[in-house]
Amino acid sequence: MVDLAETLVDMVDAADWAMFSKNGGDATAQSVLIARAATGRRKIVKIKEGYHGVAAWMQEDRPGTTPADTEHVLEIPWNDLEAFQALIDQHPNDIACFISSAYEHSLFRDNVLPADGYWEGIEALCRKHGIVLIIDEVRTGFRINLRGANVEYGFTPDLICFGKAIANGFPLAALVGSDSMKDAAKEVYFTGTQFFNAAPMAAARATLLELQKIDGAQMMTDYGNSLNKGLVAVAASHGYDFIASGVPAMPYYRIEASSLKLHSAWVDHCVSRGLYLLAVHNNFVSTAHSEKDLKKILEIADDAFNALGSPSSQALAG
Amino acid sequence: MVDLAETLVDMVDAADWAMFSKNGGDATAQSVLIARAATGRRKIVKIKEGYHGVAAWMQEDRPGTTPADTEHVLEIPWNDLEAFQALIDQHPNDIACFISSAYEHSLFRDNVLPADGYWEGIEALCRKHGIVLIIDEVRTGFRINLRGANVEYGFTPDLICFGKAIANGFPLAALVGSDSMKDAAKEVYFTGTQFFNAAPMAAARATLLELQKIDGAQMMTDYGNSLNKGLVAVAASHGYDFIASGVPAMPYYRIEASSLKLHSAWVDHCVSRGLYLLAVHNNFVSTAHSEKDLKKILEIADDAFNALGSPSSQALAG
Repeated sequence: MVDLAETLVDMVDAADWAMFSKNGGDATAQSVLIARAATGRRKIVKIKEGYHGVAAWMQEDRPGTTPADTEHVLEIPWNDLEAFQALIDQHPNDIACFISSAYEHSLFRDNVLPADGYWEGIEALCRKHGIVLIIDEVRTGFRINLRGANVEYGFTPDLICFGKAIANGFPLAALVGSDSMKDAAKEVYFTGTQFFNAAPMAAARATLLELQKIDGAQMMTDYGNSLNKGLVAVAASHGYDFIASGVPAMPYYRIEASSLKLHSAWVDHCVSRGLYLLAVHNNFVSTAHSEKDLKKILEIADDAFNALGSPSSQALAG
Repeated sequence: MVDLAETLVDMVDAADWAMFSKNGGDATAQSVLIARAATGRRKIVKIKEGYHGVAAWMQEDRPGTTPADTEHVLEIPWNDLEAFQALIDQHPNDIACFISSAYEHSLFRDNVLPADGYWEGIEALCRKHGIVLIIDEVRTGFRINLRGANVEYGFTPDLICFGKAIANGFPLAALVGSDSMKDAAKEVYFTGTQFFNAAPMAAARATLLELQKIDGAQMMTDYGNSLNKGLVAVAASHGYDFIASGVPAMPYYRIEASSLKLHSAWVDHCVSRGLYLLAVHNNFVSTAHSEKDLKKILEIADDAFNALGSPSSQALAG
């Protein structure tokens, strides 16, 4: 555990300490407890439809939740500094934290990168008003930048939540933070029987050291760029505009000017041919993906467009 | 996953279905969502100081929580049917669930078994008032009765939460329930990236089948009884009254008529001699404990009492 914490602190710019749990949602729940403990404030600001796990405070209006669960959760649209400023004005000295992924990767729509100056603006507002800045890197962790997505986007968060691929499939999540959050992190009560299993921690350490050795984030970015370019070209050869949004290591795909139904039909054709893509969620590139895989993916994609038929036949069918 | 669910449904009387997560606290959080979804009610009734994980609704007044987190959490003393009836009267048609461990195993004090008629009374009140009955077997699971602690205590819960030892050290938790809860269980949103790892599920299935084969609960109960008897005898030979409370497979130990400080000092003497006991929490017996271990435990306990000195020397020191 200490070895892994040291690896994270060495690797991640914003990390002065690390704590461990099992799922990304554990790390986000813990981050909010820490932010509230550090500030003595109640309100959480998040991005509209931003996903941070299944704790009741994240499940607005879902079955089994009560209005009290989300009483102190506020939302703003992505890339909207004015909306953040407005909430700060409406709730003076009561916003404990701003929690967000590094860019918008919601379901069912194009993912959106941060606008120029957005993260700088968010950071400035957080600093000015004593708001804890939390980045949820559960999906993006070690895919954009091994030192933290914030390094890529030019800002410094107080807390970063990691999960998913951190231990290459073994169950682990990590919360890392700055020295300024350390006292609050010590103060909050957050534990679980399974948080401290040794095998996932050993797996995480081996994974992180290997990612550093091979520059995994760069590998996945390069591969994602090739994959996106290839799929756009294959689609174009069938008369379709293919959109790849988000970061290259985690592309969200959509066929332009078509319904989700048509895109899902194309994805179904891919899946039935052995290419597992997602219609509603971003896909994930891995360092295990090879040039051979790329060739195979583009062949299957091509064959799936054949099965789908031309845009004009689709327009007639629609 | 399906194999493990079938094993649980075969093994646990009250289980018609099973869902999986990582920590006991996941299962308890999920159980409460299901109870609220099933009833459309808000209030949770739990036992005073009963522990069900680190979700904010369980953390009254702890750093980082807000009053809204526990707004709908009500508490009653253990073994107190009248207090439950009083809450039902105060909150007509607004109590979604009663959640409790099978017996009281709080920290820092003797554990308390259910009084005669207690669980029958709780079940009757739950049925009469449409309250979902949830048993938290995260600690007791498969230690009291392989078919569920409720079978031992003569009642039928709607939901049972399992965790900790279910997969013999691999991270896994399970929520099982009755058919009447199935629709609500389907309706609630509860998921996590790591909930569905295959290895912990295979480990859990192997563990449960082995526990059935060897009647693990009976083995641990028999061993716990021998252990308790032996420790009481060793303590008596040094002039101490030694109390073992709770179920034999999970004994809470205390030196009678002494401060926690003295008990902790004795435990420290044990730990420094290679016997890992807990001063504030129940201990756990395992099917791996042997007769040889028992002999060794009693030798160390004896030696630790020697190091502690006699009750009269303690009284002088105190």
